Amino acid sequence: MIQQDRLKKRMLEMAEIGKTPNGGVTRLALSEENRQGRELLMQWMKEIGLAVRYDDFGNIIGRLEGSDPDAAVVMAGSHIDSVPKGGKFDGVLGVLGALEVVETIRGQGIDHRNPIEVVAFTNEEGARFTPQMLGSGAVTGEFSKAYTYARTDWDGFRFEEELQKIGFVGAEENRPKNVETFIEMHIEQGPTLEVNDETVGVVTGIAGFTWLEVTVHGDSNHSGTTPMSYRKDSLVTASGVIRALSDWANGKPDGVVATVGKIKTSPDIINAVPGETTFTIDIRCPDEDQFDAYFAEVHELIRRVVSEDELTCTIDEIKTHPPVVFSERVVGTIDEVCRDLEVSYRSMASGAGHDAMYMHNIADTAMIFVPSINGKSHCEEEETRWEDIEQGVNVLYEAIVRLSQ
Amino acid sequence: MIQQDRLKKRMLEMAEIGKTPNGGVTRLALSEENRQGRELLMQWMKEIGLAVRYDDFGNIIGRLEGSDPDAAVVMAGSHIDSVPKGGKFDGVLGVLGALEVVETIRGQGIDHRNPIEVVAFTNEEGARFTPQMLGSGAVTGEFSKAYTYARTDWDGFRFEEELQKIGFVGAEENRPKNVETFIEMHIEQGPTLEVNDETVGVVTGIAGFTWLEVTVHGDSNHSGTTPMSYRKDSLVTASGVIRALSDWANGKPDGVVATVGKIKTSPDIINAVPGETTFTIDIRCPDEDQFDAYFAEVHELIRRVVSEDELTCTIDEIKTHPPVVFSERVVGTIDEVCRDLEVSYRSMASGAGHDAMYMHNIADTAMIFVPSINGKSHCEEEETRWEDIEQGVNVLYEAIVRLSQ
Repeated sequence: MIQQDRLKKRMLEMAEIGKTPNGGVTRLALSEENRQGRELLMQWMKEIGLAVRYDDFGNIIGRLEGSDPDAAVVMAGSHIDSVPKGGKFDGVLGVLGALEVVETIRGQGIDHRNPIEVVAFTNEEGARFTPQMLGSGAVTGEFSKAYTYARTDWDGFRFEEELQKIGFVGAEENRPKNVETFIEMHIEQGPTLEVNDETVGVVTGIAGFTWLEVTVHGDSNHSGTTPMSYRKDSLVTASGVIRALSDWANGKPDGVVATVGKIKTSPDIINAVPGETTFTIDIRCPDEDQFDAYFAEVHELIRRVVSEDELTCTIDEIKTHPPVVFSERVVGTIDEVCRDLEVSYRSMASGAGHDAMYMHNIADTAMIFVPSINGKSHCEEEETRWEDIEQGVNVLYEAIVRLSQ
Repeated sequence: MIQQDRLKKRMLEMAEIGKTPNGGVTRLALSEENRQGRELLMQWMKEIGLAVRYDDFGNIIGRLEGSDPDAAVVMAGSHIDSVPKGGKFDGVLGVLGALEVVETIRGQGIDHRNPIEVVAFTNEEGARFTPQMLGSGAVTGEFSKAYTYARTDWDGFRFEEELQKIGFVGAEENRPKNVETFIEMHIEQGPTLEVNDETVGVVTGIAGFTWLEVTVHGDSNHSGTTPMSYRKDSLVTASGVIRALSDWANGKPDGVVATVGKIKTSPDIINAVPGETTFTIDIRCPDEDQFDAYFAEVHELIRRVVSEDELTCTIDEIKTHPPVVFSERVVGTIDEVCRDLEVSYRSMASGAGHDAMYMHNIADTAMIFVPSINGKSHCEEEETRWEDIEQGVNVLYEAIVRLSQ
């Protein structure tokens, strides 16, 4: 079994890099803090005796050879970049948990046929360079090299130059290859495990999502001189859509969620009826069979509310990704391990995207969740109990051992 | 009766200054365009034989002496500044309409005991320097000289220096004084006259208003990982308030309106449940007796919707002004004139603020509205039929003649 103290010590040491006053971290992708975190990670990998490399997107891989050097790879990991004022567990747990697993396997001289690799992917968060999960997407056929290199941050700095600046442009041949199995451990980032008093989530897939931008077209007028009955107030109508959308999602099975995160009126002044209101919609659904039907229902709902108010709207699709269903073989092994170790667990879908979503393109993949206190993440209050981490990493350990025989 | 062609020619000549490609004007207070408009106005005043002066806030006054130089002043006017991409009638009609009235009186040798003054107030729109109606407010005890001079625009330029820059700092003794009667003619800026096929609005007062800023406090969480039932989504609740507020105002008598013009979520990202949502409310009510009760109802409505959703909120009052009820004497004279001239008219309150609101502090005041096509104003499409303008200015003419005997 793994050594919790050793893992905790490393987690806290990593959390010193980019530490924020209220106990979080800001370690944006390809920043100086990110560089320091990378150097520390590679130093630890080397101390444990792993062969360390990084590829042309800066993804870092530490490799422990198995008894059969030609066998396919069993890989585990996540990312070490963070959002601004993020938490110390998001991503890091998946990388340092995997490192702890490999150190335990090596330390205890556990036999394994397959090589085992620990990975830290570049720019998972998408907080500096959009979209999210650039590093894993780039090595799994999701994004081209030209597209990835040309991504720019809010100051206009390009991914390629920023990667050069921190000295992490590796060789193309260093990308993950011949990966048979991938497991990503991660904090849940939601309340389900905590509320149900369970320690591990065996993640069976990732919810599909659609991001929409909706603009309601009304009529801008003076707020003082336009009687209520003459108004075509785009914000009143948008508000009707937002309430209806929330009611709709509340009536759907668990895992289906709908969120309006951004909203803007035009002309955006206190004493004018908003002529136009634009807002985003983020809908998620883990169920492959319902995915298309649900999104059609949402389009229908928007058009119904808008036409009831006798206004018009345009709906733009920003991005859509269908649900990902993970490997039965890997999910089954994690299930079995939880039962054998008598860890309380539940099967669940991930509502958020993770590197595992793209690794699923090239390997049999699954994820392991541990509880987030109050369901919080992407904030300085992000927290997971160390006992839960210990049990979760033990599940990862046992699963890796079984999958690498 | 007035000469429509002469008035129209001046209106269109003034509209050349700051003209926008789509037929509107941008003539912000104390801008170079505003200076040119002022020079043109003063030139016309002088051509007509008025004694022209401007005061220490740049308010321009042209005076026609009456038979009794010590009699109190009958004044008419409005403003010639505009919002960005505004219309060519807003404000200008009240100034050039009054100028046409005075030229007619002088040209036809109409006897009048009282001096008659035409005024153009500085910075009525509040589009460059907030708040609105600075010039009329400053000369009627609403704003101190220090406060007015210290107002800054979005670039940080101070009112005082900008007034100096265009050469319009006059003497304090040039302010309006001994004003007995003030009439402001203006476009309606709403649809009521047009919809009811009436030519003149006899304005009995100005709606009181309260501007509020409401912040709904919820909980920010990841949009993908937070089940609907665990959410405290501040925007969903704010949307409930916005719908309820609209329903509330729809159920009230004419003239009561409620508008949410600005709204902002935090953290304002597509994939986060909005933890906080802040929006403005603009409520207007022309009825003195209901003013306080209605505003209490709105506070109650906000708190009820927010507490039904089990969230909390804060309500800040930005600004409140009670309803203004104009002079019965002046309103009665305008009524009488409309009947005598057989002009179709209605009594109505103004939903918008005007210089008349502050002139009411020092003089018996009323307003005359003419129809706005499609109720539009503060935009390039702003339009009023020239026939309506002719009838409206004739009402102004006849009222001024009667009130200055």
